[in-house]
Amino acid sequence: MIKIDFSKRQNQSLWEFIYTSIKEQILNGTLSENEKLPSKRVLASHLNVSVITIQNAYENLISDGYIYSIEKKGFFVTEGIFDLQKSFQKNENSLQTKKAKKQKDKILKSFSKEKKLIADFTDNSTSAKKFPFTLWSHLIRQTLNSSNENLLKRPSVFGVEELRKAIAHHLNTFRNMEVDFNQVVITAGTEHLFSTIIQLLGTKSKFAIENPGYDKIEKILQINNTRFSKVDIDDFGIKLDGIKKTKAQIVHVSPSHHFPTGIIMPIKRRIELIKWVEENENRFIVEDDFDSEFRFNAKPIQPLQTFNPQKVIYINTFSKTLSPSFRISYMVLPNSLLEEFNKKMNDFSCPVSVFEQHTLARFIAEGQYEKHIAKMKNYYRTIRNNLITQIQTSKISSKVKILEENAGLHFLLKIDTKKPKDKFQNALLQKGIKISYLKDFYPLSNLQNDFVCLINYSTLEKNSIPTIVKILEREINF
Amino acid sequence: MIKIDFSKRQNQSLWEFIYTSIKEQILNGTLSENEKLPSKRVLASHLNVSVITIQNAYENLISDGYIYSIEKKGFFVTEGIFDLQKSFQKNENSLQTKKAKKQKDKILKSFSKEKKLIADFTDNSTSAKKFPFTLWSHLIRQTLNSSNENLLKRPSVFGVEELRKAIAHHLNTFRNMEVDFNQVVITAGTEHLFSTIIQLLGTKSKFAIENPGYDKIEKILQINNTRFSKVDIDDFGIKLDGIKKTKAQIVHVSPSHHFPTGIIMPIKRRIELIKWVEENENRFIVEDDFDSEFRFNAKPIQPLQTFNPQKVIYINTFSKTLSPSFRISYMVLPNSLLEEFNKKMNDFSCPVSVFEQHTLARFIAEGQYEKHIAKMKNYYRTIRNNLITQIQTSKISSKVKILEENAGLHFLLKIDTKKPKDKFQNALLQKGIKISYLKDFYPLSNLQNDFVCLINYSTLEKNSIPTIVKILEREINF
Repeated sequence: MIKIDFSKRQNQSLWEFIYTSIKEQILNGTLSENEKLPSKRVLASHLNVSVITIQNAYENLISDGYIYSIEKKGFFVTEGIFDLQKSFQKNENSLQTKKAKKQKDKILKSFSKEKKLIADFTDNSTSAKKFPFTLWSHLIRQTLNSSNENLLKRPSVFGVEELRKAIAHHLNTFRNMEVDFNQVVITAGTEHLFSTIIQLLGTKSKFAIENPGYDKIEKILQINNTRFSKVDIDDFGIKLDGIKKTKAQIVHVSPSHHFPTGIIMPIKRRIELIKWVEENENRFIVEDDFDSEFRFNAKPIQPLQTFNPQKVIYINTFSKTLSPSFRISYMVLPNSLLEEFNKKMNDFSCPVSVFEQHTLARFIAEGQYEKHIAKMKNYYRTIRNNLITQIQTSKISSKVKILEENAGLHFLLKIDTKKPKDKFQNALLQKGIKISYLKDFYPLSNLQNDFVCLINYSTLEKNSIPTIVKILEREINF
Repeated sequence: MIKIDFSKRQNQSLWEFIYTSIKEQILNGTLSENEKLPSKRVLASHLNVSVITIQNAYENLISDGYIYSIEKKGFFVTEGIFDLQKSFQKNENSLQTKKAKKQKDKILKSFSKEKKLIADFTDNSTSAKKFPFTLWSHLIRQTLNSSNENLLKRPSVFGVEELRKAIAHHLNTFRNMEVDFNQVVITAGTEHLFSTIIQLLGTKSKFAIENPGYDKIEKILQINNTRFSKVDIDDFGIKLDGIKKTKAQIVHVSPSHHFPTGIIMPIKRRIELIKWVEENENRFIVEDDFDSEFRFNAKPIQPLQTFNPQKVIYINTFSKTLSPSFRISYMVLPNSLLEEFNKKMNDFSCPVSVFEQHTLARFIAEGQYEKHIAKMKNYYRTIRNNLITQIQTSKISSKVKILEENAGLHFLLKIDTKKPKDKFQNALLQKGIKISYLKDFYPLSNLQNDFVCLINYSTLEKNSIPTIVKILEREINF
């Protein structure tokens, strides 16, 4: 018979307490399988509660599967629960649980923070200090007050139409690209963007990527179990014969500004690449235009996409221009891929916040995005010029040479020294300056024997430059 | 020799116009390969512009690869550009371009809007009408004003710590789950969430999914080129012998509320499933708890995750509770998978807006999320009760039966009629009511010969219920 000890009831509702008590008695074997429970009326009268309370408890026991009912016969305890529970408990304190705890402790430790640096020249993220918070706050309020009914609808996999239109207009105006908004797909950061491209082109396609290049792309291909080859670059970018050897169909390139070498792909290599892609209908180029906004003393490079919009998937991101915390990127699909994309992805949704898409659309449409880029370009130029001037007027000016300083947010610093590379790197790190060598990425043909550092200056604090230059003077001269 | 026709210059800067003019003459063959260009000084004097203007134009031509320079000799036109350009132009008006245009037109047409419906009982998205815009607007302003330095940093792949903590606390309090925030991973909607799980567990794992079930899961597996089997359900949920036959390692289930049948997995099947998953260290359950917040007249179901947190990946979404436009979901990883996740994904970033993550964290931490769920539950209960009462007091009350009405946001309507199913469905559609049959999803054992409709009522307008019931009366009786 059911025993209910109301003294144990805390802040549960009556029915829930009765439900829990009966459940426990089934799990610990006090109530045996197929045992008949008292009728609702009898139990209610016995416990001095309403019939509805008992009914609620019984219904929940039924839907959880602890008891079952037979019409006109009553309620019975389900078979086999006690036995299952017994064998189940045995495993509770198993080795697995202890092992997992140990693993967790280890991982928690690895989360502890790094030492604060004066300069991290290996950090190629952009500065977000100039983010226009007040304006953004104003625009998002406008968005939320707009009573646009689409604000609450599941977005299509293409993204919000207003943003797609704003991006198409931006590309038409500032990149000279002929883009219809229907070709624009809004995506959430590089991983999502590239995973989507892999899904669209099929995991069976083979990719060629630049060597050296962004190691993230390599990791995304690996994690998606997609075949790829790394193709060496020469002084003009990715090598054509290298691509041909791999038999890849898809090539990922960053022709406007290669990372880490800073190479801008010359027109001849561009045309060769376009000719290669046009030779076969399954071939496509993924053109990564990530840094093109920050080219100094020069006009922007003409995108590969304009050479043949049918064969190039153009990709770009707002993480570089607005803030690294901004997870909005996009791609421009060739018309020939639109139907396939629609077929494969139509049931899905764009993962980017709808509120943020509408806000960004306003930001671009009002011309604020262009203004922001101009402001940032100016900000980076000042830092770059300060750093370069202070190096060139320092005691080490005759021992260093600055290369590839006009495109993107890094330059190369060639140092004339006989010190061992590792020792130099560690000595700087001790003083709070983190550097990497171009050689870490790739032994470039004409630079390979040199002492060339990669200087990402975008996150640098202007007022820390004198300190940095003093440290460099000391470490290079002594 | 270079010819520059300044009458053609519009609003380009001087150096850019000169750059473009020379580029065109190289592309159209007016300037031949290896032809020597005038020195900067000579051209500047000839065109009556400053040497710096010419220098700018020449430098851009060099970095684009149109010309090259030899020290102390001068500037020369690059070899082979004219030939490449000629062969390249031939392809411009190719068949491919025309074909692509046709495809595009076709796709544009398919984008045209559907006819407005009175009721779409096939739509299982939730209503977002009650979205707390004012409060959200207030909280996002607080977030943007908070000067939290993490607002502008690239988020880790796990997501924003504040939100992970708020979710862990929510699960501890309202779902009785023991979850540490380090186990919580913020993801962007079901596709991204499930693709991440596939990437984590490896594309070589085999999945078992419920049949019938969410067809989206099937599509995500397909697009990720992952092996899976559909396993039939019986009246208690997914069948164990079915899972065993497939030799799958990963099972996706929705034990709290199965779609479309509404089945709640009874305790016995739950324990059997846990026993199965514990038999092998490579096995995992993905527990989809998507609808658990909206269970009526009953306490929430105990998640499978609480039975063995080491073997269950618990997943849930805010799209159902807040708005379908909200692309924020999350998973709770077993500790045993944390190290693997960290290893595979550590270089990536969480794709969800950082601003929105912080705002949602505030929303949950202030107790507003629970309040909102309570409000929505009340809202849906009113619509459901109205619809059920009006059907039960209508002229067709004796011809219909309502089933599985207590969990989630749909119920089953069993209709006693001899009409052909297709005809009935089309007749309703003509009047603006879209329905689907349970049979469309799966011939359920004990319901398979019946006329059972799936009624998703979450997007229903309350004041359209009388019209809907009148239409049903007419179509069922006549």
